Amino acid sequence: MCRWLAYSGSPVLLEELLYGPKNSLIVQSLHSRLGAEETNGDGFGVGWYGAQETPALFHSIEPAWNDRNLRELAGHVNASIVFAHIRASTGSPVQQTNCHPFRHGRWLWMHNGLIYDFHAIKRDLVLAIDPELYPAIEGTTDSETLFHLALTFGLEEDPPSAVQRAIGLVETVGHRRGVEYPFQGTIATTDGDCIWAFRYSSEGKSRSLFFSTDVRTLRELYPENLLLRDLDDESRLIVSEPLGDLPGAWNEVPESSWGVIQPGQDEMHPFVPEADVAASRAS
Amino acid sequence: MCRWLAYSGSPVLLEELLYGPKNSLIVQSLHSRLGAEETNGDGFGVGWYGAQETPALFHSIEPAWNDRNLRELAGHVNASIVFAHIRASTGSPVQQTNCHPFRHGRWLWMHNGLIYDFHAIKRDLVLAIDPELYPAIEGTTDSETLFHLALTFGLEEDPPSAVQRAIGLVETVGHRRGVEYPFQGTIATTDGDCIWAFRYSSEGKSRSLFFSTDVRTLRELYPENLLLRDLDDESRLIVSEPLGDLPGAWNEVPESSWGVIQPGQDEMHPFVPEADVAASRAS
Amino acid sequence: MCRWLAYSGSPVLLEELLYGPKNSLIVQSLHSRLGAEETNGDGFGVGWYGAQETPALFHSIEPAWNDRNLRELAGHVNASIVFAHIRASTGSPVQQTNCHPFRHGRWLWMHNGLIYDFHAIKRDLVLAIDPELYPAIEGTTDSETLFHLALTFGLEEDPPSAVQRAIGLVETVGHRRGVEYPFQGTIATTDGDCIWAFRYSSEGKSRSLFFSTDVRTLRELYPENLLLRDLDDESRLIVSEPLGDLPGAWNEVPESSWGVIQPGQDEMHPFVPEADVAASRAS
Amino acid sequence: MCRWLAYSGSPVLLEELLYGPKNSLIVQSLHSRLGAEETNGDGFGVGWYGAQETPALFHSIEPAWNDRNLRELAGHVNASIVFAHIRASTGSPVQQTNCHPFRHGRWLWMHNGLIYDFHAIKRDLVLAIDPELYPAIEGTTDSETLFHLALTFGLEEDPPSAVQRAIGLVETVGHRRGVEYPFQGTIATTDGDCIWAFRYSSEGKSRSLFFSTDVRTLRELYPENLLLRDLDDESRLIVSEPLGDLPGAWNEVPESSWGVIQPGQDEMHPFVPEADVAASRAS
Repeated sequence: MCRWLAYSGSPVLLEELLYGPKNSLIVQSLHSRLGAEETNGDGFGVGWYGAQETPALFHSIEPAWNDRNLRELAGHVNASIVFAHIRASTGSPVQQTNCHPFRHGRWLWMHNGLIYDFHAIKRDLVLAIDPELYPAIEGTTDSETLFHLALTFGLEEDPPSAVQRAIGLVETVGHRRGVEYPFQGTIATTDGDCIWAFRYSSEGKSRSLFFSTDVRTLRELYPENLLLRDLDDESRLIVSEPLGDLPGAWNEVPESSWGVIQPGQDEMHPFVPEADVAASRAS
Repeated sequence: MCRWLAYSGSPVLLEELLYGPKNSLIVQSLHSRLGAEETNGDGFGVGWYGAQETPALFHSIEPAWNDRNLRELAGHVNASIVFAHIRASTGSPVQQTNCHPFRHGRWLWMHNGLIYDFHAIKRDLVLAIDPELYPAIEGTTDSETLFHLALTFGLEEDPPSAVQRAIGLVETVGHRRGVEYPFQGTIATTDGDCIWAFRYSSEGKSRSLFFSTDVRTLRELYPENLLLRDLDDESRLIVSEPLGDLPGAWNEVPESSWGVIQPGQDEMHPFVPEADVAASRAS
Repeated sequence: MCRWLAYSGSPVLLEELLYGPKNSLIVQSLHSRLGAEETNGDGFGVGWYGAQETPALFHSIEPAWNDRNLRELAGHVNASIVFAHIRASTGSPVQQTNCHPFRHGRWLWMHNGLIYDFHAIKRDLVLAIDPELYPAIEGTTDSETLFHLALTFGLEEDPPSAVQRAIGLVETVGHRRGVEYPFQGTIATTDGDCIWAFRYSSEGKSRSLFFSTDVRTLRELYPENLLLRDLDDESRLIVSEPLGDLPGAWNEVPESSWGVIQPGQDEMHPFVPEADVAASRAS
Repeated sequence: MCRWLAYSGSPVLLEELLYGPKNSLIVQSLHSRLGAEETNGDGFGVGWYGAQETPALFHSIEPAWNDRNLRELAGHVNASIVFAHIRASTGSPVQQTNCHPFRHGRWLWMHNGLIYDFHAIKRDLVLAIDPELYPAIEGTTDSETLFHLALTFGLEEDPPSAVQRAIGLVETVGHRRGVEYPFQGTIATTDGDCIWAFRYSSEGKSRSLFFSTDVRTLRELYPENLLLRDLDDESRLIVSEPLGDLPGAWNEVPESSWGVIQPGQDEMHPFVPEADVAASRAS
């Protein structure tokens, strides 16, 4: 149970995203307002796309508010797609391999929430992962397992469908084991071009998720705001809780939805988990 | 600005002291009720007296609530004098050499509070430290500097006088540099036999400090409490905020006081900083 | 590929075992003479039996030669059964959950060596682990997987048979995947009463393993050695490379052998891996 | 006692400098050929100049060969001035504040070597540091003290003179305390435009230092080497021990010399420590 931020737009210094706003993600690491936990001090991670084919990752087990390397990096790295995540562990060890975002080729993945009773159903879920992908699992979190399930179900071709199948499987297996509400959370994933975000929980009471208002609209609202002038029209933030304090800047993603931030018109759709019958048989 | 606990009494498993009580020190590391900061996640330390002449130390830069080695140790180590400290840094780096308790020979020292504007007056204070002791300073905190000042002023012979001179010097030097209220805090120190505790601030608004009620009295209040039966009559805790929830178990140390826990009758006295003219000239 | 030490005997301060001898384990962490790697700086671990039912563990990702907490602990903890391990990673991440010794209830396990091509056969091996034990796997090493296979095959009832079945399975699965020599290494395991040690490799060229000469014999050889006078007659060390420099003190464990250190007569037997047909079918 | 590398030239990916060559700095962290110590596993640091006014720093207490964040960074950061340092501690604690390079404004500083008997003369040296600079000292190494002495003596205006005065002071103070050969080592410092390198020891037996042959000459020697074609004519490396295996690529810096790598003609001069009478009186 964590907090995260996903950015797409004009290249910005990480520092402006991570430390700049009131109620910034780093501030939230010490004092989150909306999270299930106030403190998210169990490690953090940042991923960004630079000159290379694959994104860069920085993972640390120190609390984000303390990490000097993060501050240094953030003051020197520019990127136009950024994922950042602060962790409040729900039980799995605090180690770099359990820090989000997770990476597979060009893809990044991060998650705020949990698979309930994960210990009881982990083996069934892991068995459903493509054996070719299995050795790539490095940590022990439910979130990384879910990522590999989504990859197994075609994340790289059709992200919404793959995530709906992955969570569908979690629900199938969980229900079979007597877990009433197997899944809870918000997810972001990207291939470096588009960002897909998901808000869903089996119980229908998902963790919060917000996307930023269109920059053109914000500029009309706040004509004197200099930061907004520098951003291109397509710049967009998705966050687990609002940053800054501009009224009108944030819109809640509705319960059981997924959206995509992409060149051109962004989209939002209902999220409907889809049990994968074959995979669920295999487990 | 931190939280701490000092115990003297029947040998106990560290686990009972650190994790056992409601609002235990480990719980406080995530959610302190009385502290200036809610989270004390910038490292911690434990010191205890075992079979050796000098006490053992365990220092870590991970948040205490996460540290698996602390939990292991706490489950296996018994001691009759224990110091434990969780840190919320006021600026100096989070590194093991900045974790309390500090040690000199058989002595331990820990501090909750700060020397205001320490950067401005640090050099003057360090110059007042005995040159023989100077090379033993390993970290960069105000608390360790204060410890070495107290050692310089005879901590090992007369702790109350040495601490009164050390804080007196801090006030003299601070005032000279225009700091209105140079010192704030509570301190505990021990030689493995007695524990001295201090509550003082230049402003007269010191951080909280509590000592436990006499075990005999507590047994009368709570005749059915099993834990109390196991403790010897002299067992005593001093804490920066109360543990557990037994009414009558905790007594606030008055503003500007020092006390000593010792075999026989414990004592409490007023604390009056004493400017050390010679040392203050030297600086 | 690592170095380890197992001790059983009169209670000793860990410091004497870990730091005392010439070519001590801590010295080996910087400069091993016999290991496949000279440096074993990828974390370490110590396990010991104290007053509690289950053994204590201390795991760290710092190099052992640097770790101040290890030195503190070692100077204050006495134990009569001690396991210590320094790691040179063969690929899996340097994190506490990958540090030996591993623990299950009262049992400890450590390993110097590797399962060749572990990534390719890991899934098959993990599938053979008892589903009840599966959620207890916290790290990603071949050694921890092997431990859980041995537990699955009855380590707690008959250690030699369980290890022979576990390594038998590794060889069966490895051969099926085209790995010529699937296993290599030495293993130590204990329940807090006896210590079992194993030396085996599929190729018949196992890493080195030595056990100490009977203390009575050593006393006759070195009548003036004070340390030997303090040890009881049953004290025994097993190490991956000899400590100290007493001629006659160390005996090589023969290729493909297992031994047990126990109250009364110690024993040594040939080690013959035994393929577990049922488990291998299950994978 | 450490190893380091300083690069100035065409922008390169840090990875090519740190991991690319045979006997690369990362390889040296495990197995140095020429160093006083084979293993340099006590932390490391990298500094580089990017888009900002001040250089970026990355410091870690993990051995460099293990650090995943270093590998990530190195694969994504380009720079035209790079300082990298791997540490083998001579006693001061392994903590980020003791990792080189050290920074002051636009300046970086790193050092391989030591001030002999530093504990005995540290106080005298620290007293000679400009009181304005004193609070900026964060760690406890001799190298950082030397840096602040050089800053006190005008490093930012005339680096060779400032370093000669700083080491002169070390020798004056050391001799007064009975240290025969007070200083040993090689130093690199930069303001982001030029790099100054120093090789000196009081005994006249300094640690090794090499600079790379002029790129034009190397291209003639190795016309088919693609890497050399990409480098501009002014690109230059200074290293504590040669990288790669191109004969003719490395030239030893003579004993007791300093050199500067700058736009236009590089220079080399004799190094002559200069006792600073005033500063030495002050101490």
